[in-house]
Amino acid sequence: MSRIAVAQVAPDVTDQAGNLVRAAAAITTALDAGADIVVLPELVTSGYVFESADEARAAAIPADAAVFDEWTLLASTRPGAVIVGGFAELGDDGNVYNSAAMVDGSGVRAVYRKVHLWDEEPKFFTAGSETPPVVSTSHGTLGMMICYDLEFPEWTRLAALAGTEILLVPTNWPFAPRPAGERVAEVQTGAAAARINRMAVACADRTGTERGVDWNNGSSIISAAGWVVAEVGEGTGIAYADIDAADSRSKAWTERADAFADRRPELYGGVARP
Amino acid sequence: MSRIAVAQVAPDVTDQAGNLVRAAAAITTALDAGADIVVLPELVTSGYVFESADEARAAAIPADAAVFDEWTLLASTRPGAVIVGGFAELGDDGNVYNSAAMVDGSGVRAVYRKVHLWDEEPKFFTAGSETPPVVSTSHGTLGMMICYDLEFPEWTRLAALAGTEILLVPTNWPFAPRPAGERVAEVQTGAAAARINRMAVACADRTGTERGVDWNNGSSIISAAGWVVAEVGEGTGIAYADIDAADSRSKAWTERADAFADRRPELYGGVARP
Repeated sequence: MSRIAVAQVAPDVTDQAGNLVRAAAAITTALDAGADIVVLPELVTSGYVFESADEARAAAIPADAAVFDEWTLLASTRPGAVIVGGFAELGDDGNVYNSAAMVDGSGVRAVYRKVHLWDEEPKFFTAGSETPPVVSTSHGTLGMMICYDLEFPEWTRLAALAGTEILLVPTNWPFAPRPAGERVAEVQTGAAAARINRMAVACADRTGTERGVDWNNGSSIISAAGWVVAEVGEGTGIAYADIDAADSRSKAWTERADAFADRRPELYGGVARP
Repeated sequence: MSRIAVAQVAPDVTDQAGNLVRAAAAITTALDAGADIVVLPELVTSGYVFESADEARAAAIPADAAVFDEWTLLASTRPGAVIVGGFAELGDDGNVYNSAAMVDGSGVRAVYRKVHLWDEEPKFFTAGSETPPVVSTSHGTLGMMICYDLEFPEWTRLAALAGTEILLVPTNWPFAPRPAGERVAEVQTGAAAARINRMAVACADRTGTERGVDWNNGSSIISAAGWVVAEVGEGTGIAYADIDAADSRSKAWTERADAFADRRPELYGGVARP
């Protein structure tokens, strides 16, 4: 059993230094509360609402930036702890990516570059072209993707088929109205992705109005059975849930029915076609 | 705008004649209430809980059976009306399929054979191997799939990519417990499939204990935005909602973001692999 924390914080595109302080504070709080895996929002180091490509580039940092040394140090305070958070990445190739890093006490274990860029993001970022990482840890086989990626069922399926047991999703879900009593729509999407892939999903959303943009405050932890087991709700905060990665290992619905074995991939060619 | 009806009835595997009467009564009630599209459960003509392959075969009927003449006659009483319901099909090839028929005033427009068979169903049925039909009607481009098919995101995506605007889903969802306040899990899956494909989804579930098996009573109509807009609840009944197929035609989330155009199919090869 692993304790997962999703930290809903308020990055600020005009306060880069403060973003690092707020992220570190959330990590420390979560680890002190016994978290084994801490998930932070998309672009937690930089904020989201850029006004220009130059501004995004100025906020971009390489995958070996000092902040990841800090996260490594924090992770090393708790055996096996894993930290995942989003950052604007300045690639070796000179491009700027919307990325997420997975860090443990040994350093950066994986970097993922968002493949499905949302709305105006192509103005600021180059799209990634690698599939989500699949990282073996003492808390299970962990994967990550970012925000809008979760809305593509091919992508969540692909992560699950590759062996992801707990999918960690830094996100910035822009505010959208919803009917009374309904969950955030993206959380519903995440819950269905969890259920049909028998894979736990933990989403860390952001909060805090940024340049007039509000957010869905949808940070949630979803079991491999597809039930939302913890939510932050409005405002800053951290939600915790105990998740056993082993629950994601069997894809069986019943003795005879199995979410993976019952696939008919020979009939799915059309899904991959443009 | 088209009025959709999902009819939650109680087929009985020991009363084949009564099943036809109950189905016709539900169709008549729905059409009298102004329904343009009436969806009935999976295996509505036969019941579900077979004890043997012989019993399933005895209940199987061909796609030109008299019941479809009756449905055609009923559909012809309302211009453009479409009726969809499940039946145990005796194929020309001698196999028994878990199928659904789409009927309008002109006759049977399409038959779909369930591709993803659930649990013990392979004892009774041969799996289909054709993709869901895509049928142009005065109420939009209609598709259909059956029950467990909906749990395969490749299948719903494929139907949507093929142009389905309203997906009609005859289903028999066996009872499964759920946390207080939560919707039926399969409805949550359907809602996410609707949302991420921008495609309306109408599911007709069954009710009535059959040979000790209970059901989720999950009949629901879901908008292309992914919100549940009508539900039957427990017991027999019909839920109605007005759905505009045109709402499924644009896949745009925003001016710049589009659920289909933003796909990266060149990266999805793995999803189709066994």
